[in-house]
Amino acid sequence: MSLETLDDLFLHDLKDLYDAEKRLVKALPKLARKAQDEELQTALEEHLAVTEKQVERIEQIFDMLDKPHRGKKCLGMEGLVNEGAELLEEVEPGAPLDAALIGAAQKVEHYEIAGYGTLIAHARQLGLDSAVTLLEKTLAEEKEADEKLTGIASHINLAAAEQEE
Amino acid sequence: MSLETLDDLFLHDLKDLYDAEKRLVKALPKLARKAQDEELQTALEEHLAVTEKQVERIEQIFDMLDKPHRGKKCLGMEGLVNEGAELLEEVEPGAPLDAALIGAAQKVEHYEIAGYGTLIAHARQLGLDSAVTLLEKTLAEEKEADEKLTGIASHINLAAAEQEE
Repeated sequence: MSLETLDDLFLHDLKDLYDAEKRLVKALPKLARKAQDEELQTALEEHLAVTEKQVERIEQIFDMLDKPHRGKKCLGMEGLVNEGAELLEEVEPGAPLDAALIGAAQKVEHYEIAGYGTLIAHARQLGLDSAVTLLEKTLAEEKEADEKLTGIASHINLAAAEQEE
Repeated sequence: MSLETLDDLFLHDLKDLYDAEKRLVKALPKLARKAQDEELQTALEEHLAVTEKQVERIEQIFDMLDKPHRGKKCLGMEGLVNEGAELLEEVEPGAPLDAALIGAAQKVEHYEIAGYGTLIAHARQLGLDSAVTLLEKTLAEEKEADEKLTGIASHINLAAAEQEE
């Protein structure tokens, strides 16, 4: 694939995030299953449903551009998901793993916050107003998920610290 | 390495970010060299100097904890750096590559914003106040770098869009 214009770059980045979201749809249930804290488990499960909607929004944009629903291997998300999988091997279920899972999930959220932020800036520049509207919905959801995880972290970090006494 | 406590997790994450920052020290000059926009090139070069300081701050925390300056392969940053390297192969220098480089750099910044955010929350929970102070300096720098890139993006995105007319 050769990228020469901002249109090309927009499509490239859309394919990248499409692949990223689909990787996440596969990874989230594995993380949720290992979470011990109920609130964290629910948050991860709910985020799976949100992510599935986000995949559909990207498909709507592919349709607007008259392009096939085809992703492009997202090396960034691949790395983040591998990092999460590594944690599951290194840590037994419990408060410290829950604290680690929150950190891994927030790295994923931030990857997406950056990715959608760039896509929106480019879509706006290209006058793709309907795409901007869809992408802004997703970006707001990613920020909300990140803040929710920060909220859940406080009692989990406390429990993780108490565990070592 | 087996992680059982929040202390273990803090050290694990510190090693992860130490490796991440060192990977970035190697990658940033390659990105800066390909940037065509002068302001972007300067921003990437300046961020290299900032990143080198951030590496030193992590070393200071290793010293506080009486631990060796030793990283742990950061799969997340490895993926992000590979993603940036792939862009350099796919896009010829010019405004669209500059726009892509900004996107790649912001993904890196957001990885670090999430990573340092978690480290700070855990350090605070563990009462590691001097570490919190150092880490908060770095987090503020990462956020500043991200905002600076957003500012630079506006004229670069405009130039990239004009290039295709």
